[in-house]
Amino acid sequence: MSLKTLLLNQGAERRLRAGHIWIYSNEVDNKRSPLKQFEPGEQVLVEASNGKSLGVAYVNPNTLICGRIISRSTKYRLDRSLLVHRLNIALSLREACFDKPCYRLVYGDSDGLPGLVIDRFYDVFVVQISTAGMETVVEDIVSALNKVFMPEAIVLRCDGKMRATEGMESYIEVVQGSVDELCPLEENGVSLLAPVLTGQKTGWFYDHRNNRAAMQRHCDGKRVLDLFSYVGGWGVQALAAGASEVTCVDASETALEVALENARINAAEDRFIGLQGDAFDTCKALIQEKEKFDVVVVDPPAFIQRRKDIKNGERAYARINNLAMRLLDKGGILVSASCSMHLQRERLVDIIRSNARELDRSAQIFDQGHQGADHPVHPAIPETDYLKSFCVRVLPNN
Amino acid sequence: MSLKTLLLNQGAERRLRAGHIWIYSNEVDNKRSPLKQFEPGEQVLVEASNGKSLGVAYVNPNTLICGRIISRSTKYRLDRSLLVHRLNIALSLREACFDKPCYRLVYGDSDGLPGLVIDRFYDVFVVQISTAGMETVVEDIVSALNKVFMPEAIVLRCDGKMRATEGMESYIEVVQGSVDELCPLEENGVSLLAPVLTGQKTGWFYDHRNNRAAMQRHCDGKRVLDLFSYVGGWGVQALAAGASEVTCVDASETALEVALENARINAAEDRFIGLQGDAFDTCKALIQEKEKFDVVVVDPPAFIQRRKDIKNGERAYARINNLAMRLLDKGGILVSASCSMHLQRERLVDIIRSNARELDRSAQIFDQGHQGADHPVHPAIPETDYLKSFCVRVLPNN
Repeated sequence: MSLKTLLLNQGAERRLRAGHIWIYSNEVDNKRSPLKQFEPGEQVLVEASNGKSLGVAYVNPNTLICGRIISRSTKYRLDRSLLVHRLNIALSLREACFDKPCYRLVYGDSDGLPGLVIDRFYDVFVVQISTAGMETVVEDIVSALNKVFMPEAIVLRCDGKMRATEGMESYIEVVQGSVDELCPLEENGVSLLAPVLTGQKTGWFYDHRNNRAAMQRHCDGKRVLDLFSYVGGWGVQALAAGASEVTCVDASETALEVALENARINAAEDRFIGLQGDAFDTCKALIQEKEKFDVVVVDPPAFIQRRKDIKNGERAYARINNLAMRLLDKGGILVSASCSMHLQRERLVDIIRSNARELDRSAQIFDQGHQGADHPVHPAIPETDYLKSFCVRVLPNN
Repeated sequence: MSLKTLLLNQGAERRLRAGHIWIYSNEVDNKRSPLKQFEPGEQVLVEASNGKSLGVAYVNPNTLICGRIISRSTKYRLDRSLLVHRLNIALSLREACFDKPCYRLVYGDSDGLPGLVIDRFYDVFVVQISTAGMETVVEDIVSALNKVFMPEAIVLRCDGKMRATEGMESYIEVVQGSVDELCPLEENGVSLLAPVLTGQKTGWFYDHRNNRAAMQRHCDGKRVLDLFSYVGGWGVQALAAGASEVTCVDASETALEVALENARINAAEDRFIGLQGDAFDTCKALIQEKEKFDVVVVDPPAFIQRRKDIKNGERAYARINNLAMRLLDKGGILVSASCSMHLQRERLVDIIRSNARELDRSAQIFDQGHQGADHPVHPAIPETDYLKSFCVRVLPNN
């Protein structure tokens, strides 16, 4: 396949040479290689202004990030063969890190496959495609998965927010096999179910695996509150670790039904309480009722979606952490997380500090968590490092 | 005990109210409460310029940090009773986190006991005192330890660098019981020995516990290189996790002898190689001999001791990580750590990024580590958060 060439402006090659793989539209030499000549998703040879090769990328003339490098060598194309190779490399890391085949198999840029996410639930593979370039090879992706895994089922959960920006329709399709409404998985030795067809994203958030394991060490015989519980990723693992009672709070009745089902398959439904409602309001009601918990988990959806939301978002994080801290019993443990890429770790530490002072408590951060090994960080792309989680012991001041 | 009062300048109370516990000498109102009137180590009532109480501190008129708050209430003094209370609170966190009584029991500021570090090796307690204020209560510390633990032995390892600044002599003394040259401990289920009387600091670095556990998952059947090995904290745990061969490199012959002894008690001396020498030179020699390893651990001593060393220090980290990366076999794993408080996490990520690019490799950071739960972070004191460690998979580029 012979490709057209995308020429960059002078100096624009520097970031790419330093390891990054994104090309911004204002970095393209639009005189010598007008972006408009390319189809969304088309593969191109990328060259610095002096003609030196930077590799192969796929492009989208309609997006701010108009190109993503898929190889630094000009001899590769994004095709079935490269997909098979990259899947095998991604797989070897996961197999080195996890006992059971339940993990994020492909994490986009960090696994050399920008625009592609694949979550694995044993032999069910849930695929998310977020760029036009990756969408052009959707059949190769299915074929490559079959070559490497012979999956029982493949689901395309192509309904992410980024698709509209890329000019793509949303769709959800089971392209191979059949999938139950609730799909089994294992995390930290606990059997769980994920709504892969109808739930958020791929149905499950594997990224918090290690942080939930850290929480589990402090749950035995304890009363746990899981805010923004979704289907009980934290709460049910707390039950499995021996919590005497877990209260899951979520705005979605459906999510809480799955959480209850997850409690049930762990023979813990009698220790499970589901509270449907807004987390902030529910906390206020619980405070009014003078409820206290030994462990409170605060793992909200991203309050900061864009840079301009930082100020309001930080305030929301501060408010919910404040409410959570007030619900803690003496010496209780706050698990405070954020998946907002725009919330710096230090800012969340500072939110913990200021809330502790405001409530005249003393706080010790004794565990600092990140996304798990199936979400590796690309050292040149800070955006790939988004998750933070802290275990905090909150003591009376003295 | 009635105390003199230390008055602060206007506004100087703000940082303390926000949670910090250090007072700098230029924050003191020297007209109304001259620092020179206080003895090194003396306890004082601290007041804002408007007379509002900020608590009790101990002071040292001769140091830049001239005071450290020991309680925000005026009713407490740093004495046996408060020490017993704080020891019990510190103990409860360790008991919640660890199976065996081998850990840092007290981590200074973060455990409300500034200037005091206590490492526990089963029933042997190794105490480090780094401030004049804490030194004044050395007998209370021994007495409090006896009240809470009835230790078999107590060692005062009062030979840290900070003591000279505080105007104190260095000494090492076994004040209770007797201690063998090598003291048993357990970390991540592995039995080990630490030279508590003659080794670095307290003889052992418990802070890397979790990071060593992360490394262990990738050692089975692998060839491991442990740079700056000291007594084999990483290397011997790699052996215990099934490494086919471990090479420990250290400048100290004595440290390597202890490392060998640690290998021996794990029945792994036949898989242990000790190389005495400079880590940089040894790496160069190994590169020349075309040696390759599956896992290379880079855990140097702090290359950056003071802010002014940042530039040179970062260069040294870059150089040693470069050498380490060149010694990795295809798909090998670099464990890169730094205990320099002045080296930002992001800078170490960037060092990994630039080395990977320079060597035309692609790097995935799949585990981000911190100090363990026995070194809790005080959210108002960034200095208490110093340790970083990364597991990085290094792949050929394509």
